[in-house]
Amino acid sequence: MRFYDCKTAPSPRRVRIFMAEKGIDIETVQVDLGSGEQFADSFREINADCVVPALQLDDGSCLSEVIAICHYLEALYPEPALLGSSDEERARVLMWNSKVEQQGLWAVADAFRNVAKGLKDRAATGPVAYAQIPELAERGRARVLHFYDRINQQLAKQEFLAGEAYSIADISALVVVDFAAWIKLAVPEDAEHLKRWHESVSSRPSAAA
Amino acid sequence: MRFYDCKTAPSPRRVRIFMAEKGIDIETVQVDLGSGEQFADSFREINADCVVPALQLDDGSCLSEVIAICHYLEALYPEPALLGSSDEERARVLMWNSKVEQQGLWAVADAFRNVAKGLKDRAATGPVAYAQIPELAERGRARVLHFYDRINQQLAKQEFLAGEAYSIADISALVVVDFAAWIKLAVPEDAEHLKRWHESVSSRPSAAA
Repeated sequence: MRFYDCKTAPSPRRVRIFMAEKGIDIETVQVDLGSGEQFADSFREINADCVVPALQLDDGSCLSEVIAICHYLEALYPEPALLGSSDEERARVLMWNSKVEQQGLWAVADAFRNVAKGLKDRAATGPVAYAQIPELAERGRARVLHFYDRINQQLAKQEFLAGEAYSIADISALVVVDFAAWIKLAVPEDAEHLKRWHESVSSRPSAAA
Repeated sequence: MRFYDCKTAPSPRRVRIFMAEKGIDIETVQVDLGSGEQFADSFREINADCVVPALQLDDGSCLSEVIAICHYLEALYPEPALLGSSDEERARVLMWNSKVEQQGLWAVADAFRNVAKGLKDRAATGPVAYAQIPELAERGRARVLHFYDRINQQLAKQEFLAGEAYSIADISALVVVDFAAWIKLAVPEDAEHLKRWHESVSSRPSAAA
Protein backbone atom coordinates (compact mmCIF):
# COMPACT_ATOMS: atom_id res chain seq x y z
CA MET A 1 0.00 0.00 0.00
CA ARG A 2 1.05 3.60 -0.55
CA PHE A 3 -0.42 6.60 1.25
CA TYR A 4 -0.76 9.92 -0.62
CA ASP A 5 -0.54 12.71 1.92
CA CYS A 6 0.03 16.44 2.23
CA LYS A 7 1.70 17.17 5.54
CA THR A 8 0.14 20.66 5.87
CA ALA A 9 -3.48 19.82 4.93
CA PRO A 10 -6.30 18.99 7.36
CA SER A 11 -8.06 16.11 5.56
CA PRO A 12 -5.04 13.79 5.26
CA ARG A 13 -4.16 14.61 8.89
CA ARG A 14 -7.31 12.70 9.90
CA VAL A 15 -5.79 9.55 8.40
CA ARG A 16 -2.33 10.31 9.79
CA ILE A 17 -3.73 10.51 13.33
CA PHE A 18 -5.77 7.34 12.73
CA MET A 19 -2.62 5.49 11.62
CA ALA A 20 -0.57 6.87 14.51
CA GLU A 21 -3.14 5.56 17.02
CA LYS A 22 -2.79 2.10 15.48
CA GLY A 23 0.96 2.23 14.96
CA ILE A 24 0.56 1.77 11.19
CA ASP A 25 3.65 2.68 9.19
CA ILE A 26 3.31 2.54 5.41
CA GLU A 27 5.07 4.13 2.46
CA THR A 28 3.97 7.74 2.21
CA VAL A 29 4.16 10.11 -0.75
CA GLN A 30 3.79 13.87 -0.21
CA VAL A 31 1.58 15.65 -2.77
CA ASP A 32 2.39 19.36 -2.92
CA LEU A 33 -1.06 20.99 -2.97
CA GLY A 34 0.53 24.45 -2.93
CA SER A 35 2.13 23.99 -6.34
CA GLY A 36 -0.91 22.15 -7.77
CA GLU A 37 0.63 18.69 -7.93
CA GLN A 38 -2.86 17.21 -7.31
CA PHE A 39 -3.89 18.41 -10.79
CA ALA A 40 -1.00 16.70 -12.61
CA ASP A 41 -1.97 13.83 -14.91
CA SER A 42 0.14 11.45 -12.83
CA PHE A 43 -1.99 12.15 -9.74
CA ARG A 44 -5.31 12.30 -11.62
CA GLU A 45 -4.67 8.68 -12.61
CA ILE A 46 -4.54 7.84 -8.91
CA ASN A 47 -7.51 9.98 -7.84
CA ALA A 48 -9.62 11.71 -10.51
CA ASP A 49 -11.04 14.00 -7.81
CA CYS A 50 -7.59 15.56 -7.32
CA VAL A 51 -7.66 15.44 -3.53
CA VAL A 52 -5.66 13.81 -0.76
CA PRO A 53 -5.71 11.61 1.24
CA ALA A 54 -5.63 8.62 -1.09
CA LEU A 55 -4.55 5.06 -0.39
CA GLN A 56 -3.21 3.04 -3.29
CA LEU A 57 -3.68 -0.69 -2.81
CA ASP A 58 -1.24 -3.34 -3.97
CA ASP A 59 -3.30 -4.01 -7.13
CA GLY A 60 -2.83 -0.34 -8.13
CA SER A 61 -6.42 0.66 -7.43
CA CYS A 62 -7.06 3.57 -5.13
CA LEU A 63 -9.26 4.38 -2.15
CA SER A 64 -10.06 8.00 -1.38
CA GLU A 65 -12.38 9.67 1.16
CA VAL A 66 -11.22 9.57 4.77
CA ILE A 67 -14.00 7.33 6.10
CA ALA A 68 -13.38 4.72 3.38
CA ILE A 69 -9.62 4.66 3.94
CA CYS A 70 -10.09 4.37 7.70
CA HIS A 71 -12.67 1.59 7.30
CA TYR A 72 -10.21 -0.39 5.19
CA LEU A 73 -7.30 0.19 7.60
CA GLU A 74 -9.50 -0.77 10.58
CA ALA A 75 -10.18 -4.15 8.94
CA LEU A 76 -6.44 -4.75 8.43
CA TYR A 77 -5.39 -3.36 11.82
CA PRO A 78 -8.36 -3.85 14.18
CA GLU A 79 -6.64 -2.71 17.40
CA PRO A 80 -7.35 -0.29 18.95
CA ALA A 81 -10.87 -0.06 17.49
CA LEU A 82 -11.48 3.48 16.25
CA LEU A 83 -14.76 2.83 14.43
CA GLY A 84 -16.70 1.35 17.35
CA SER A 85 -16.84 -2.12 18.93
CA SER A 86 -20.51 -3.10 18.46
CA ASP A 87 -23.05 -2.51 15.70
CA GLU A 88 -24.68 0.27 17.66
CA GLU A 89 -21.33 1.86 18.53
CA ARG A 90 -20.22 1.66 14.90
CA ALA A 91 -23.42 3.42 13.83
CA ARG A 92 -22.90 6.17 16.43
CA VAL A 93 -19.29 6.67 15.33
CA LEU A 94 -20.36 6.96 11.68
CA MET A 95 -23.14 9.34 12.70
CA TRP A 96 -20.83 11.67 14.62
CA ASN A 97 -18.11 11.50 12.00
CA SER A 98 -20.70 12.54 9.42
CA LYS A 99 -22.02 15.40 11.56
CA VAL A 100 -18.46 16.64 12.15
CA GLU A 101 -17.79 16.65 8.40
CA GLN A 102 -21.00 18.41 7.44
CA GLN A 103 -21.35 20.86 10.30
CA GLY A 104 -17.67 21.42 11.06
CA LEU A 105 -15.24 20.52 8.31
CA TRP A 106 -17.19 21.89 5.33
CA ALA A 107 -18.05 25.01 7.32
CA VAL A 108 -14.37 25.78 8.06
CA ALA A 109 -13.47 24.95 4.46
CA ASP A 110 -16.16 27.36 3.18
CA ALA A 111 -14.89 30.05 5.53
CA PHE A 112 -11.27 29.56 4.53
CA ARG A 113 -11.42 28.80 0.81
CA ASN A 114 -13.82 31.61 -0.11
CA VAL A 115 -11.52 34.38 1.08
CA ALA A 116 -7.95 32.98 1.13
CA LYS A 117 -5.75 35.04 -1.19
CA GLY A 118 -4.00 32.01 -2.66
CA LEU A 119 -7.28 30.26 -3.59
CA LYS A 120 -8.94 32.94 -5.71
CA ASP A 121 -10.38 30.54 -8.30
CA ARG A 122 -10.09 27.42 -6.17
CA ALA A 123 -12.97 28.02 -3.77
CA ALA A 124 -13.87 24.31 -3.76
CA THR A 125 -11.54 21.31 -3.68
CA GLY A 126 -11.39 19.19 -6.81
CA PRO A 127 -10.46 19.68 -10.44
CA VAL A 128 -12.93 22.47 -11.34
CA ALA A 129 -12.14 26.17 -10.80
CA TYR A 130 -14.88 27.98 -8.87
CA ALA A 131 -14.74 31.67 -7.97
CA GLN A 132 -14.80 32.67 -4.31
CA ILE A 133 -18.08 33.77 -2.69
CA PRO A 134 -17.25 36.03 0.29
CA GLU A 135 -20.82 35.73 1.67
CA LEU A 136 -20.31 31.99 1.88
CA ALA A 137 -17.17 32.53 3.94
CA GLU A 138 -19.27 34.57 6.37
CA ARG A 139 -21.92 31.84 6.53
CA GLY A 140 -19.13 29.32 7.13
CA ARG A 141 -17.89 31.30 10.16
CA ALA A 142 -21.39 31.41 11.63
CA ARG A 143 -21.77 27.68 11.07
CA VAL A 144 -18.47 26.93 12.83
CA LEU A 145 -19.71 28.78 15.94
CA HIS A 146 -22.92 26.73 15.85
CA PHE A 147 -20.85 23.57 15.49
CA TYR A 148 -18.77 24.49 18.56
CA ASP A 149 -21.95 24.94 20.56
CA ARG A 150 -23.40 21.67 19.27
CA ILE A 151 -20.41 19.53 20.19
CA ASN A 152 -19.88 21.37 23.48
CA GLN A 153 -23.37 20.21 24.47
CA GLN A 154 -22.65 16.68 23.31
CA LEU A 155 -19.36 16.57 25.24
CA ALA A 156 -21.17 17.69 28.40
CA LYS A 157 -22.84 14.27 28.39
CA GLN A 158 -19.91 11.96 27.69
CA GLU A 159 -16.12 11.83 27.48
CA PHE A 160 -15.83 11.49 23.70
CA LEU A 161 -18.07 12.52 20.82
CA ALA A 162 -19.59 9.14 20.01
CA GLY A 163 -19.57 7.73 23.55
CA GLU A 164 -17.03 6.63 26.15
CA ALA A 165 -14.39 5.52 23.63
CA TYR A 166 -12.08 7.67 21.51
CA SER A 167 -12.95 7.24 17.81
CA ILE A 168 -12.52 8.59 14.29
CA ALA A 169 -15.27 11.11 15.16
CA ASP A 170 -12.92 12.65 17.76
CA ILE A 171 -10.05 12.61 15.27
CA SER A 172 -12.19 14.43 12.71
CA ALA A 173 -13.38 17.00 15.25
CA LEU A 174 -9.83 17.62 16.52
CA VAL A 175 -8.73 18.33 12.95
CA VAL A 176 -11.70 20.70 12.47
CA VAL A 177 -10.89 22.69 15.63
CA ASP A 178 -7.22 23.00 14.64
CA PHE A 179 -8.18 23.87 11.03
CA ALA A 180 -10.42 26.65 12.40
CA ALA A 181 -7.28 28.32 13.77
CA TRP A 182 -6.51 29.16 10.12
CA ILE A 183 -9.61 31.38 10.11
CA LYS A 184 -8.90 32.59 13.68
CA LEU A 185 -11.98 30.96 15.20
CA ALA A 186 -10.74 29.48 18.45
CA VAL A 187 -12.98 27.48 20.77
CA PRO A 188 -14.98 30.01 22.82
CA GLU A 189 -13.83 30.44 26.43
CA ASP A 190 -17.22 29.42 27.81
CA ALA A 191 -17.36 26.13 25.84
CA GLU A 192 -15.97 24.29 28.85
CA HIS A 193 -16.70 20.71 27.77
CA LEU A 194 -15.27 21.27 24.30
CA LYS A 195 -12.15 22.83 25.85
CA ARG A 196 -11.72 19.89 28.25
CA TRP A 197 -12.08 17.45 25.34
CA HIS A 198 -9.74 19.44 23.04
CA GLU A 199 -6.99 19.46 25.68
CA SER A 200 -7.46 15.74 26.21
CA VAL A 201 -7.34 14.66 22.55
CA SER A 202 -4.53 17.13 21.77
CA SER A 203 -2.38 15.57 24.49
CA ARG A 204 -2.41 12.13 22.84
CA PRO A 205 0.87 11.43 21.02
CA SER A 206 -1.10 10.82 17.78
CA ALA A 207 -2.13 14.50 17.68
CA ALA A 208 1.39 15.37 16.49
CA ALA A 209 0.74 13.47 13.25
CA MET B 1 -37.62 0.95 16.46
CA ARG B 2 -39.38 3.95 14.97
CA PHE B 3 -38.44 5.65 11.70
CA TYR B 4 -38.87 9.43 11.36
CA ASP B 5 -39.49 10.20 7.72
CA CYS B 6 -40.77 12.92 5.40
CA LYS B 7 -42.36 11.31 2.37
CA THR B 8 -41.52 14.22 0.02
CA ALA B 9 -37.86 14.80 1.05
CA PRO B 10 -34.79 13.34 -0.66
CA SER B 11 -32.60 12.38 2.33
CA PRO B 12 -35.10 10.09 4.06
CA ARG B 13 -35.89 8.54 0.66
CA ARG B 14 -32.37 7.06 0.70
CA VAL B 15 -33.32 5.09 3.81
CA ARG B 16 -36.79 4.21 2.45
CA ILE B 17 -35.23 2.66 -0.68
CA PHE B 18 -32.63 0.86 1.47
CA MET B 19 -35.41 -0.63 3.63
CA ALA B 20 -37.51 -1.55 0.58
CA GLU B 21 -34.58 -3.50 -0.90
CA LYS B 22 -34.33 -5.49 2.33
CA GLY B 23 -38.07 -5.84 2.92
CA ILE B 24 -37.80 -4.02 6.27
CA ASP B 25 -41.12 -2.78 7.60
CA ILE B 26 -41.01 -0.69 10.77
CA GLU B 27 -43.23 1.89 12.44
CA THR B 28 -42.88 5.16 10.54
CA VAL B 29 -43.73 8.69 11.66
CA GLN B 30 -44.09 11.46 9.10
CA VAL B 31 -42.44 14.77 10.06
CA ASP B 32 -44.00 17.68 8.16
CA LEU B 33 -40.95 19.70 7.05
CA GLY B 34 -43.21 22.13 5.18
CA SER B 35 -44.88 23.35 8.37
CA GLY B 36 -41.63 23.30 10.38
CA GLU B 37 -42.45 20.29 12.56
CA GLN B 38 -38.69 19.47 12.66
CA PHE B 39 -38.14 22.58 14.79
CA ALA B 40 -40.74 21.65 17.44
CA ASP B 41 -39.35 20.83 20.89
CA SER B 42 -40.81 17.32 20.63
CA PHE B 43 -38.67 16.58 17.56
CA ARG B 44 -35.58 18.42 18.82
CA GLU B 45 -35.53 15.94 21.71
CA ILE B 46 -35.26 13.15 19.13
CA ASN B 47 -32.73 14.88 16.87
CA ALA B 48 -31.18 18.18 17.97
CA ASP B 49 -30.08 18.79 14.36
CA CYS B 50 -33.74 19.09 13.30
CA VAL B 51 -33.43 16.88 10.23
CA VAL B 52 -34.88 13.61 8.99
CA PRO B 53 -34.25 10.74 8.57
CA ALA B 54 -33.89 9.63 12.18
CA LEU B 55 -34.18 6.16 13.66
CA GLN B 56 -35.28 5.88 17.26
CA LEU B 57 -34.03 2.72 18.94
CA ASP B 58 -35.96 0.76 21.54
CA ASP B 59 -34.01 2.40 24.40
CA GLY B 60 -35.27 5.79 23.20
CA SER B 61 -31.91 6.94 21.82
CA CYS B 62 -31.73 8.11 18.25
CA LEU B 63 -29.55 7.54 15.20
CA SER B 64 -29.44 10.16 12.48
CA GLU B 65 -27.33 10.55 9.31
CA VAL B 66 -28.23 8.20 6.46
CA ILE B 67 -24.99 6.22 6.46
CA ALA B 68 -25.24 5.53 10.20
CA ILE B 69 -28.88 4.42 10.00
CA CYS B 70 -28.13 2.15 7.03
CA HIS B 71 -25.08 0.67 8.75
CA TYR B 72 -27.22 -0.22 11.77
CA LEU B 73 -30.02 -1.70 9.64
CA GLU B 74 -27.50 -3.70 7.57
CA ALA B 75 -26.26 -5.36 10.78
CA LEU B 76 -29.82 -6.31 11.78
CA TYR B 77 -30.92 -7.31 8.26
CA PRO B 78 -27.76 -8.42 6.40
CA GLU B 79 -29.48 -9.65 3.21
CA PRO B 80 -29.18 -8.45 0.53
CA ALA B 81 -25.88 -6.75 1.39
CA LEU B 82 -26.05 -3.07 0.39
CA LEU B 83 -22.84 -1.92 2.05
CA GLY B 84 -20.47 -4.37 0.35
CA SER B 85 -19.54 -8.00 0.97
CA SER B 86 -15.79 -7.81 1.69
CA ASP B 87 -13.59 -5.28 3.49
CA GLU B 88 -12.43 -3.81 0.20
CA GLU B 89 -15.97 -3.68 -1.20
CA ARG B 90 -17.24 -2.03 1.98
CA ALA B 91 -14.52 0.61 1.67
CA ARG B 92 -15.42 1.27 -1.98
CA VAL B 93 -19.11 1.57 -1.14
CA LEU B 94 -18.35 4.06 1.66
CA MET B 95 -16.05 5.96 -0.71
CA TRP B 96 -18.65 6.30 -3.44
CA ASN B 97 -21.43 7.08 -1.02
CA SER B 98 -19.28 9.87 0.37
CA LYS B 99 -18.41 11.23 -3.10
CA VAL B 100 -22.12 11.19 -4.05
CA GLU B 101 -23.01 13.17 -0.93
CA GLN B 102 -20.28 15.76 -1.31
CA GLN B 103 -20.25 16.20 -5.08
CA GLY B 104 -23.91 15.48 -5.79
CA LEU B 105 -26.28 15.82 -2.87
CA TRP B 106 -24.83 18.98 -1.30
CA ALA B 107 -24.49 20.55 -4.75
CA VAL B 108 -28.19 20.02 -5.57
CA ALA B 109 -29.13 21.18 -2.07
CA ASP B 110 -27.06 24.38 -2.52
CA ALA B 111 -28.69 24.98 -5.91
CA PHE B 112 -32.20 24.42 -4.55
CA ARG B 113 -32.15 25.92 -1.07
CA ASN B 114 -30.39 29.18 -2.05
CA VAL B 115 -33.14 30.27 -4.45
CA ALA B 116 -36.34 28.41 -3.48
CA LYS B 117 -39.04 30.93 -2.58
CA GLY B 118 -40.24 28.98 0.42
CA LEU B 119 -36.76 28.74 1.98
CA LYS B 120 -35.78 32.41 2.11
CA ASP B 121 -34.06 32.23 5.52
CA ARG B 122 -33.60 28.49 5.56
CA ALA B 123 -30.75 28.17 3.05
CA ALA B 124 -29.13 25.37 5.06
CA THR B 125 -30.81 22.45 6.82
CA GLY B 126 -30.75 22.47 10.60
CA PRO B 127 -31.96 24.73 13.39
CA VAL B 128 -30.14 27.95 12.40
CA ALA B 129 -31.61 30.47 9.93
CA TYR B 130 -29.18 31.39 7.14
CA ALA B 131 -30.00 33.83 4.34
CA GLN B 132 -29.91 32.58 0.76
CA ILE B 133 -26.82 33.20 -1.40
CA PRO B 134 -27.90 33.17 -5.08
CA GLU B 135 -24.27 32.88 -6.28
CA LEU B 136 -24.00 29.65 -4.31
CA ALA B 137 -27.06 28.30 -6.12
CA GLU B 138 -25.25 28.99 -9.40
CA ARG B 139 -22.11 27.26 -8.16
CA GLY B 140 -24.29 24.32 -7.07
CA ARG B 141 -25.71 23.97 -10.60
CA ALA B 142 -22.22 23.93 -12.11
CA ARG B 143 -21.15 21.32 -9.56
CA VAL B 144 -24.11 19.08 -10.40
CA LEU B 145 -23.07 19.07 -14.07
CA HIS B 146 -19.53 18.11 -13.06
CA PHE B 147 -20.95 15.36 -10.84
CA TYR B 148 -22.97 13.96 -13.77
CA ASP B 149 -19.83 13.84 -15.87
CA ARG B 150 -17.85 12.24 -13.05
CA ILE B 151 -20.29 9.39 -12.44
CA ASN B 152 -20.96 8.91 -16.15
CA GLN B 153 -17.25 8.12 -16.53
CA GLN B 154 -17.33 5.79 -13.55
CA LEU B 155 -20.41 3.96 -14.89
CA ALA B 156 -18.65 3.45 -18.23
CA LYS B 157 -16.34 1.04 -16.38
CA GLN B 158 -18.80 -1.01 -14.35
CA GLU B 159 -22.48 -1.74 -13.86
CA PHE B 160 -22.94 0.05 -10.54
CA LEU B 161 -21.14 2.94 -8.87
CA ALA B 162 -19.03 0.97 -6.41
CA GLY B 163 -18.55 -2.16 -8.54
CA GLU B 164 -20.65 -5.00 -9.91
CA ALA B 165 -23.18 -5.00 -7.05
CA TYR B 166 -26.00 -2.54 -6.35
CA SER B 167 -25.28 -0.64 -3.10
CA ILE B 168 -26.17 2.34 -0.93
CA ALA B 169 -23.95 4.43 -3.23
CA ASP B 170 -26.40 3.74 -6.10
CA ILE B 171 -29.34 4.53 -3.85
CA SER B 172 -27.77 7.86 -2.88
CA ALA B 173 -26.97 8.73 -6.50
CA LEU B 174 -30.49 7.81 -7.68
CA VAL B 175 -31.92 10.16 -5.06
CA VAL B 176 -29.52 12.92 -6.18
CA VAL B 177 -30.51 12.59 -9.86
CA ASP B 178 -34.22 12.66 -8.99
CA PHE B 179 -33.69 15.58 -6.56
CA ALA B 180 -31.97 17.49 -9.38
CA ALA B 181 -35.30 17.44 -11.26
CA TRP B 182 -36.44 20.01 -8.66
CA ILE B 183 -33.84 22.41 -10.09
CA LYS B 184 -34.55 21.25 -13.67
CA LEU B 185 -31.12 19.69 -14.20
CA ALA B 186 -31.82 16.45 -16.00
CA VAL B 187 -29.10 13.97 -16.92
CA PRO B 188 -27.50 15.25 -20.16
CA GLU B 189 -28.50 13.34 -23.31
CA ASP B 190 -24.89 12.41 -24.08
CA ALA B 191 -24.23 10.91 -20.64
CA GLU B 192 -25.03 7.47 -22.00
CA HIS B 193 -23.67 5.35 -19.14
CA LEU B 194 -25.40 7.46 -16.50
CA LYS B 195 -28.67 7.21 -18.46
CA ARG B 196 -28.35 3.42 -18.76
CA TRP B 197 -27.70 3.17 -15.02
CA HIS B 198 -30.51 5.58 -14.08
CA GLU B 199 -33.04 3.58 -16.08
CA SER B 200 -31.82 0.38 -14.47
CA VAL B 201 -31.94 1.54 -10.84
CA SER B 202 -35.24 3.40 -11.42
CA SER B 203 -36.86 0.19 -12.64
CA ARG B 204 -36.24 -1.64 -9.35
CA PRO B 205 -39.44 -1.82 -7.25
CA SER B 206 -37.58 -0.12 -4.36
CA ALA B 207 -37.31 3.11 -6.40
CA ALA B 208 -41.00 3.77 -5.69
CA ALA B 209 -40.19 4.19 -1.99
